[in-house]
Formats: sequence, C-alpha cells, structure tokens
Amino acid sequence: MFTKNRKKLIKSLHQKKYRDAHGLFIVEGEKMTRELISMNSDDLGAKITDLYCISSLQESFPEAEIISSEDMASITAFKTSPGILAVAEQPALLKLDLDRLNSILILDDIKDPGNLGTIIRSAEWFGIEAILLSPQTVELYNPKTVQSTMGSLFRATIYRGELEKMYLTLTQNKFTLYAADMNGDEIKLEKWADKKALIVGSEAHGISAVSKMNAHKTISIQGVGNAESLNAGVAASIIISHW
Amino acid sequence: MFTKNRKKLIKSLHQKKYRDAHGLFIVEGEKMTRELISMNSDDLGAKITDLYCISSLQESFPEAEIISSEDMASITAFKTSPGILAVAEQPALLKLDLDRLNSILILDDIKDPGNLGTIIRSAEWFGIEAILLSPQTVELYNPKTVQSTMGSLFRATIYRGELEKMYLTLTQNKFTLYAADMNGDEIKLEKWADKKALIVGSEAHGISAVSKMNAHKTISIQGVGNAESLNAGVAASIIISHW
Repeated sequence: MFTKNRKKLIKSLHQKKYRDAHGLFIVEGEKMTRELISMNSDDLGAKITDLYCISSLQESFPEAEIISSEDMASITAFKTSPGILAVAEQPALLKLDLDRLNSILILDDIKDPGNLGTIIRSAEWFGIEAILLSPQTVELYNPKTVQSTMGSLFRATIYRGELEKMYLTLTQNKFTLYAADMNGDEIKLEKWADKKALIVGSEAHGISAVSKMNAHKTISIQGVGNAESLNAGVAASIIISHW
Repeated sequence: MFTKNRKKLIKSLHQKKYRDAHGLFIVEGEKMTRELISMNSDDLGAKITDLYCISSLQESFPEAEIISSEDMASITAFKTSPGILAVAEQPALLKLDLDRLNSILILDDIKDPGNLGTIIRSAEWFGIEAILLSPQTVELYNPKTVQSTMGSLFRATIYRGELEKMYLTLTQNKFTLYAADMNGDEIKLEKWADKKALIVGSEAHGISAVSKMNAHKTISIQGVGNAESLNAGVAASIIISHW
C-alpha cells in the first residue's frame, strides 16, 4: 500500500545512507522493472518489496499498485519519471568460488555511477564471470548505476572488498592480473592467460599504487589521436572484448 | 564584466533554444577550460567570450574574472560548480573534404548527451577524421555532451545534416558504409575497406530504416552473456578500435 510512510521511505532511498540503512534500492522504467519482475518469478534477482505505476501503464503492469502522477513525480529518482517504479532488496554479495572462475573484472575506485553501470552491462555481454569493487568504488545501488546496467545488474556476480586481499587470493588461485594503464603492452598483441583478471582504474587517477604493485602485466589500448584517454567504461569494455 | 545581464545570458545557455539563438555554449571544469584557453591562444577551437572563476582558482586561471561562489553557483549548468566557467562561440560546422578523408563515424539519432560526448572522445583517440550527426541526434553543446568529450570536442570535425544526402555523397566518394546492428558479420573477422564510415544507431531503436537501406554491410559485436545489447558509446568505440 502506498501510504505516507512508504512514500517517505522511498524518497529517502534517493540517498545512499538510507539505501544502506534499509538495504533497499529503487528500480525505474519499463524495461528494467520487467526484467526484475521476470527474475522474481523465477525466484532470482533482487526481491521486490514495492511496485507502483501510473494508470496509463496499468495494462502493461497489472501486478503494480496504481498511484497518481503527482505521487510518482514525488518518489522518482529522475527528473522525469518513466511511470513505473519498484523497490527491491539489495541482494547479499556472494562469496566467490575462484576455482570455478576464469575471467574477472576489478574496479579500482570507479567514481561515476554511469560508468559503473556501463561496465556491468558490457561485462555481461562479454561473459565476465565476476566483478570485484574496491571499497571506494561508487555504490552499486545509485539510481544512475542501476539504470545504466540495463538489467545486467540483476544477473551479475559482484563482490566488494579490500583490493590487497583480493589480489593475494587471486594470485594464489593462479590468476594473471592485468592492469589497464598507459605505456603497457598493446592489447591486440597480447596472449591472454586462461585465468585472468583486468584491473580498471579511476576516471581521474587511473590505477592505484596497490594495484600497480600487484598487477602481473600492464596493458594499453593504442590510440592515434590527441585525446588524453578513453572513458573508463569504454576502455574496460574494449579490453574485455578481446578476451 | 560579470553584469546582471551577463549572468542572465549565461543562465539562459542552460537551455538549447538560447544556445541556438546566441550561438554560444558553456564550458566548465579546470581540464576542459584549460584546453579551451590553450586552443584559443593558438587561434583554434571555439572562441572564448567570457571566463569566470572563484577566488580559490585565481592562481590557476589568472586570465579569468573572479566572481563569488554564489554567483558561480547561479550560472553553473551542473549540480556542483567546479569553480571555473567559460562561455564560447559555437564554431561553424565545416564543409567536408571527402577526398582527403578515410574514416568517418555517422551517428543516427544518438539521444543521450553523455553517449555523444563519449563517442567524440573515443573517435579522437582512434583517429576518426570526421563525425556526421543526423538531424535528430542530441545537440553538441549540451553541457553533459561538452563535459564528457573531455576536450575532444574542441578538436573534432563535426557536421550535421540529412542522412540520405550524406549516404549518397559518401557512396559516390567510394566509401564503404558499415552499419552496426544485430546479426551482422563479426567485427573481428572483417576485412575493412580503406575508405570507411560506421553508422551507429540510437540507444532505443538502433539503426534507422534509411541507414539500413543505404549501408553496404552490417557488422556486429559478438557477445556471450545474456545482456541484450551494449551501450551505444561502448559499441561504437569497440568497432572503431578495430580500424
């Protein structure tokens, strides 16, 4: 039921501290919500706690509670509401089974929610099996991140933890750690290891010191123009497209 | 001089209709503004008409007029002002010299300002010589587009026009037109033509009918996961990284 208290709760989920406190996040838009509903019907993905739509979308979402456009405008995390909004429980992050895995992406302080979402989307496209986030990487349940994954978020295996520990565990498990950075080996010439992890650095500062120290190889995307660098989401996607 | 009228004018530039009417646009942030100033000192790029910074950035930008943080907050196009803001004249779009060119990117109704900016940035990195925009592609001088080019905007050759005419001219000039779409030939196996143009479709609808009809070849990026598609900026960047 869309009560005053529920409205207040959902509005609070626009802020990270309340998403953390309640363990909930917002999903908006027809495509994203449909994916979430379909995952739920298979007992997968993030569990839906609330589902609201405006009357014009009633036929598309018969399971949703209808609320007024004004109410929808007051709870959307976007400038313009797409007219359908779900609240879901943040799934617990899984323990990794490194024996079984061969291709991992490590995000070393990615700060832009849109970049994080784009990377998760590309990672699914190219069959990356798990994504590890450094403690300072932007929050997974930021509305912009959720949106730009275009549904991949609900299917991805994602883990957040200290990089140093992750690198130790990965190296013990015979992973080759590749750092994407300037002046590395050209990706097109690379002979990739079977078990591989790619480290992508932050938009502003690139690869961190701890990542540089732990990486086994540095690889680069060769450019010809004057641009200083590529967008972090683009760079990560290009490299994993070669795996 | 930062007068009341100037303040009003700059605020109006947050909207496309006033950017169009005045032929001006806003550039913000240290990196972007520095690139713009450096281009101007070589008589290149968009001509600066206004340059303002807050007092804490005075040493970095001695040529800027200092204004209060409150004034800066009132003219920035972003939630948080980076403290330095320039206004510049929109350069006239150049006539294309197709004889001289070999690699062109065509954007068929790209709608997201961030995607457009990312594509311009990647295009420079991979040495694309010109970018053609369909009439419905998002505006070049949207603040989000400007920002996400990370300076590449000031150096790019960009042209906007009817796709049908462009395709005719390009075909007459012996270009091979590649459309990025589902179920095309895999890019890794492609033998690219010397003179080539890549058509990238819109985020929601892909390649338009007129582009489909005019393209000589359809190419795809092979995926392995369940994701439905890649972000348009990522897809364009991956393909041109193979040229």
